[in-house]
Amino acid sequence: MFEKPLGMRDTLPALYKTKRALRDKVMKEISGWGYDFMETPALEYYETVGVQSAILDQQLFKLLDQQGKTLVLRPDMTAPIARVAASRIQQPFPLRLSYQANVFRAQQREGGRPAEFEQIGVELIGDDSISADAEAISLMISALKAAGLENFRVAVGHIGFADALFKEILGNQERADKLRRFLYEKNYVGYREHVKSLSLSSIDKERLLAFLTLRGEPAKMEQALSICESEDCRKAIDELNRLWEMLEAFGAAGHVKLDLNIVSHMSYYSGILFEVYSDKAGFPLGNGGRYNGLMEKFNQPAPATGFGLQLDRLLEALAPAEKAEEKQCVIYSQERMKEAAEYAGNLRADGKMAVLQNLSGIRDVDAFTKQFEEVAYFIGSKRGASDE
Amino acid sequence: MFEKPLGMRDTLPALYKTKRALRDKVMKEISGWGYDFMETPALEYYETVGVQSAILDQQLFKLLDQQGKTLVLRPDMTAPIARVAASRIQQPFPLRLSYQANVFRAQQREGGRPAEFEQIGVELIGDDSISADAEAISLMISALKAAGLENFRVAVGHIGFADALFKEILGNQERADKLRRFLYEKNYVGYREHVKSLSLSSIDKERLLAFLTLRGEPAKMEQALSICESEDCRKAIDELNRLWEMLEAFGAAGHVKLDLNIVSHMSYYSGILFEVYSDKAGFPLGNGGRYNGLMEKFNQPAPATGFGLQLDRLLEALAPAEKAEEKQCVIYSQERMKEAAEYAGNLRADGKMAVLQNLSGIRDVDAFTKQFEEVAYFIGSKRGASDE
Repeated sequence: MFEKPLGMRDTLPALYKTKRALRDKVMKEISGWGYDFMETPALEYYETVGVQSAILDQQLFKLLDQQGKTLVLRPDMTAPIARVAASRIQQPFPLRLSYQANVFRAQQREGGRPAEFEQIGVELIGDDSISADAEAISLMISALKAAGLENFRVAVGHIGFADALFKEILGNQERADKLRRFLYEKNYVGYREHVKSLSLSSIDKERLLAFLTLRGEPAKMEQALSICESEDCRKAIDELNRLWEMLEAFGAAGHVKLDLNIVSHMSYYSGILFEVYSDKAGFPLGNGGRYNGLMEKFNQPAPATGFGLQLDRLLEALAPAEKAEEKQCVIYSQERMKEAAEYAGNLRADGKMAVLQNLSGIRDVDAFTKQFEEVAYFIGSKRGASDE
Repeated sequence: MFEKPLGMRDTLPALYKTKRALRDKVMKEISGWGYDFMETPALEYYETVGVQSAILDQQLFKLLDQQGKTLVLRPDMTAPIARVAASRIQQPFPLRLSYQANVFRAQQREGGRPAEFEQIGVELIGDDSISADAEAISLMISALKAAGLENFRVAVGHIGFADALFKEILGNQERADKLRRFLYEKNYVGYREHVKSLSLSSIDKERLLAFLTLRGEPAKMEQALSICESEDCRKAIDELNRLWEMLEAFGAAGHVKLDLNIVSHMSYYSGILFEVYSDKAGFPLGNGGRYNGLMEKFNQPAPATGFGLQLDRLLEALAPAEKAEEKQCVIYSQERMKEAAEYAGNLRADGKMAVLQNLSGIRDVDAFTKQFEEVAYFIGSKRGASDE
């Protein structure tokens, strides 16, 4: 009867509490690594931020302002943060910025994904070294551990390897994009069939098929070099090797596996990229990677990397939270309101949650009191001196 | 160059920290009184929630969804919470719900008010007793005190008094609305001139002018009855008298003054209503009151009261916050990264904020290190055994 727009959800009190506790844990870990949280507006100009975001145009919520300019509800936080980093932050690079915000993606069909969801993430801007990639991955792992997540794995790849391999074998961008789309959709069956249908030498077809096996232990990196020896492929593998060395130094290598098939996006990422999965959730809980091309769209070229976690998916992947702290209730009649108010005030001063309720405001006292752990009554004429 | 839409703002890290600390204090106090926080979507159907909100239609951000239905960015939280309370909350009345959310109001002119701002508030639904009004006011005062605000006053009135007085003297609604608008705009000069221009007896004109003096000490309530003795006027004053008695019992009367000229909105409120002012801010920091007509718009008639505080205005009214905790920095060269990572990990485990930075990722080491309180270096070949 009173519907919400497609993909929009209410967060009722019990879930709100769990979500808030989880958010605080993740944010605390990110702050601990020296990242500064900031906020940007929900609405941005389409021409400024909308077109620079990693999200498809058809997924944008657009509206016109009173001057007739097109606005978008932010579909991600990376582009807005890049806008601010390029124009308003005075600190020297590298910058460590972070955010906790709802983002918006228009959904096409009923029953689909949420159209508004909370992301927590970081952007490390101005550091082109592999240590920045290693930091993004290590921090994401630490944040997930701080959240209490146990069984998860971070799949790490490098967009440069697939780009170089496809370019070498397929020649033009259009054909490469077609194959890349199968990876983006994680449609490996479609990828195989498409490869078989191409007019290529059987050796090249085998190389493209062997590419799909480049997932798992880091030792697969050597195998990768057996199917592509171009300079760009070597460079990608070299960066991944150095990354693994750093992840080991940072104590984060245990949660990481190689996946050279990761694409994550059709054109956004420019180097090492990653996705995190839990045993308990079908979708990735978050993803990230290097995007060295974005800052120059805001007139300040700079390398950058970062990640974003989807709080709701993380919540699903976690074991159910412990029961929320129960509330107490103090019920009074008019004459004893002062006494009752003092009693409730003392409970609150002790850090307890206490409802103070006039008896005359309750329709059904039995139903009402059932929800509380403890109820204290201050009702009727004052007690005698002996009770005090 | 990279503009934001009219009325939209970035919250940079320093302000973000201050704002977050303030938000936590206010939320903690509200939770202590047994209110449950919840969240609703940023977008709602215009027909469902947009038309029921207390905000003027021209201030709504509207857009069309892919089915051609009109959506609005929520302009307040009271109507969405009423939607949820009427349809999705199973607990018995009275309900105590609260929220912390950004709301959106399209602005007409450059340099005006913010178009997106954060509200924290409560809704107490299903309790028609004066104690519910007293609770809303007392809780607002406690929350402001918890936030550290000292010099503030809550102006409390009753929409029923002005309604009854205007009806008695002016007869029709149209003439009453005209006068009510001057109060809504706090244009007392305009009010006086308009009263003088009306064709009324000099006694009635004097009553309408005397009405403007009904602000200040609660003793003014007696004076109020000297200009309007109708049953509705008496009822309003009687409710205010009982309210004052309860505010005294709750220890909240010290921050409260009477103001029978408060209107706050042209048609939303139905009883006791209030606004809170600080010495340091021109606009009210928040307001609230009884709105017994809203829940029935969602097919579940119920009395209700509540308040909303504007976090940014509260921030302005407060003294500048103490300096934020400083970050430490650990700078390393490749060979000593493990050592550096362990050092930074220990700092973080101690609750400190520590940036871990590869020297090769810094463009200007002098500029970069200036921002930290302390910098530890792990650079160059390992120290000898004697240093360990």
